Amino acid sequence: MSKIGGSFVHLDGDVTTPLGFRAAAATCGLKASGAPDIALVVSDVEASAAGMFTQNAFAAAPVRLDRTTLRASGGRARAVIANSGNANAVTGPAGDAAAAAMQRAAASALACPPEHVLVLSTGVIGVPLDIAKVERGIAQAQDALTNDALSGDGGRAAARAIMTTDTRPKTAARRVRLSGGDVLVGGMAKGAGMIHPDMATMLAVLTTDLHRAPADLAADLAAAVGVSFNRISIDGDTSTNDSVILLANGASGVVVADAEIDVVTTADVVTWRAALDDLCQDLARQIVRDGEGVRKLAVIVVTGAADDDGARRVANAVATSPLVKTAFAGGDPNWGRIVAAAGRAGVAVDPARVSLTLAPGEHDVDGASAPVIVLAHGLPTGFDEAAAAALLADNAFRVLLDLGLGDGTATVWTGDLTEEYVRINADYRT
Amino acid sequence: MSKIGGSFVHLDGDVTTPLGFRAAAATCGLKASGAPDIALVVSDVEASAAGMFTQNAFAAAPVRLDRTTLRASGGRARAVIANSGNANAVTGPAGDAAAAAMQRAAASALACPPEHVLVLSTGVIGVPLDIAKVERGIAQAQDALTNDALSGDGGRAAARAIMTTDTRPKTAARRVRLSGGDVLVGGMAKGAGMIHPDMATMLAVLTTDLHRAPADLAADLAAAVGVSFNRISIDGDTSTNDSVILLANGASGVVVADAEIDVVTTADVVTWRAALDDLCQDLARQIVRDGEGVRKLAVIVVTGAADDDGARRVANAVATSPLVKTAFAGGDPNWGRIVAAAGRAGVAVDPARVSLTLAPGEHDVDGASAPVIVLAHGLPTGFDEAAAAALLADNAFRVLLDLGLGDGTATVWTGDLTEEYVRINADYRT
Repeated sequence: MSKIGGSFVHLDGDVTTPLGFRAAAATCGLKASGAPDIALVVSDVEASAAGMFTQNAFAAAPVRLDRTTLRASGGRARAVIANSGNANAVTGPAGDAAAAAMQRAAASALACPPEHVLVLSTGVIGVPLDIAKVERGIAQAQDALTNDALSGDGGRAAARAIMTTDTRPKTAARRVRLSGGDVLVGGMAKGAGMIHPDMATMLAVLTTDLHRAPADLAADLAAAVGVSFNRISIDGDTSTNDSVILLANGASGVVVADAEIDVVTTADVVTWRAALDDLCQDLARQIVRDGEGVRKLAVIVVTGAADDDGARRVANAVATSPLVKTAFAGGDPNWGRIVAAAGRAGVAVDPARVSLTLAPGEHDVDGASAPVIVLAHGLPTGFDEAAAAALLADNAFRVLLDLGLGDGTATVWTGDLTEEYVRINADYRT
Repeated sequence: MSKIGGSFVHLDGDVTTPLGFRAAAATCGLKASGAPDIALVVSDVEASAAGMFTQNAFAAAPVRLDRTTLRASGGRARAVIANSGNANAVTGPAGDAAAAAMQRAAASALACPPEHVLVLSTGVIGVPLDIAKVERGIAQAQDALTNDALSGDGGRAAARAIMTTDTRPKTAARRVRLSGGDVLVGGMAKGAGMIHPDMATMLAVLTTDLHRAPADLAADLAAAVGVSFNRISIDGDTSTNDSVILLANGASGVVVADAEIDVVTTADVVTWRAALDDLCQDLARQIVRDGEGVRKLAVIVVTGAADDDGARRVANAVATSPLVKTAFAGGDPNWGRIVAAAGRAGVAVDPARVSLTLAPGEHDVDGASAPVIVLAHGLPTGFDEAAAAALLADNAFRVLLDLGLGDGTATVWTGDLTEEYVRINADYRT
């Protein structure tokens, strides 16, 4: 994790890597397993805040509260309080009251206004949230905040505390070189479930010490989510609780293109957004790799579509096809399923122009073995099945589908569909 | 199979049940297993013909040929020739030539013009169709036609010969009482794969001895497919080969509302269409029940939507959610997954108006146990989990989702998603 991409560097870090952020976790008994279930992320000073939330009609109480809160605060916040073990979704008016109580308890612990606290929940749907437990957990987390911050474990502990069926915490950080100096950006995510938010709640909390106006930050986040968390998903396929929050506290003293204070540095905006995109894609790929039952990361790269939206729709159709995903699980280069999925995406496709290549590894530079061209301009190549199968036996590979029509491109990350996935989900609540 | 619905009766029959139809099967070696792989359905006289085909951009050669053929013949045909073991899809110009050769061979055997033969293929994608084998198979089937027709086994043999991963043949028949006398309608289908045509090719051949003009027959078929085969599918989610063909040879002497000969009997149209819908729904349910790894039939009934299209979209979102289907596999009344799926259908839903009931059996009249109301007007009822789990342990149950908004309704049939499904599909080509 120390690749260099443009003007940013990968760090081994988390939400506490940027200056002026602390985090802590607590265990309040929401999970039967007794695992940590409360996470608190705090900025020392009031920060700009942006959020993107599920489009699900059954949006959970905390999601509805956060939308209201961000409007009320004008995009400012001090903290994010999260619980796992209970989604506080489909819980009626009592659920709204519980989310508000959770927000007030965290605000009281931090001595800030309630509208400066954002709330996240993930876990079982339709079960009342035990707010007394949550309040105890918040008090514990507040106690832990100082200790964890001193030991430097708070960010990692928080990443663990938002896990549900995740098997490992997901964190990432970047150092970004801007004209005014370096800024840091960090994040944590929980993926749960399968590889798209439809399948189980996806939460992410991102922090940066960049100084950035709320409206600009919201635009940054929307762009980054569009090429990361939404690329492990079908648009609109969201759970009741999916949320991504980004806090920018300005502690670095570095400003990017803030219209309010008349600083406009286009190159910096490009660099900053590239770093944020990269961080979000890193977390998104971690979510896929830790998807329930997933053993392989498959990168679906569609090129040559009439436009980017068409490319995205084709890539999503392939990435979400159970037949394609079971073929991946079996290491079977069953390319007929891939083209059949592409053909039903509702996008103009000319079969005679379509080419399909299987390539090793997650990135262009990965993999020692050669790519295998399976379909060239609509015709099967009679490729080496053993070579293709060997490639699909690896834990990461790319499916390169060129439609031969235009300049539209899209990348979507998905995983294989295994028997273990079914086992996990058939037994989920037992 | 002898229920009475309106003015039609269920019969134990197949495509040869209507007067003037014969069928036969043959084995020409397209399947490694050595199972029958050629099916021939023939009307003694020229019949009206209608077809509905996949919308997939990679529509197979036989699908493209049939579209052209139906236009050329003005909706008239004598026979349907089908092969399993090879889809003749993504096979380029050679595939088109092979489909045409298959059509010519059958036409030659039956001494009719090629444009009076419709062609179906199902099986592996991207492998050249061995037309020499197919031609031998057609010759065998032509020989068998007389013998099978005498023994009465041809219809069932044909239903077996179109199977791929199906575990049993799927046939159905109805006797329909119309004002001019009785007509018979029969059919066969192969489902393969999972429970919607996206997942594997769905083929159906339907026959009737009704006299019906081609344009009317096409409208009948479109209406019936809309409430049957398309209700085990997401719209647009189609394989390369999905096809449904209906032949009406008039051998009963009974005419329904034929504009050409100025017979208009509205009540008969309603009765005939109800019988055709019922036959197609019967075959569609057989496809679901025999879906790969499926152990349970789940009937998703959405009511109270703003309109029928909204109801259909909500029902499809629920019916295709892997999390919902794995919960069915586990017999887990995890209603949170059902409402989460409904909430992402892109349809107006007011959570406070939504009610959800689990009911036993496939039909209203089925099942001794009482329905379980799990969500009433947006609030969990604190229902009896053991009773709900017992209901889901049965091999058929209904999910009744009322949105409380309007009069829109839709029914979609789906199955559970089991580890066996993954096993079958991860190993499909090996």
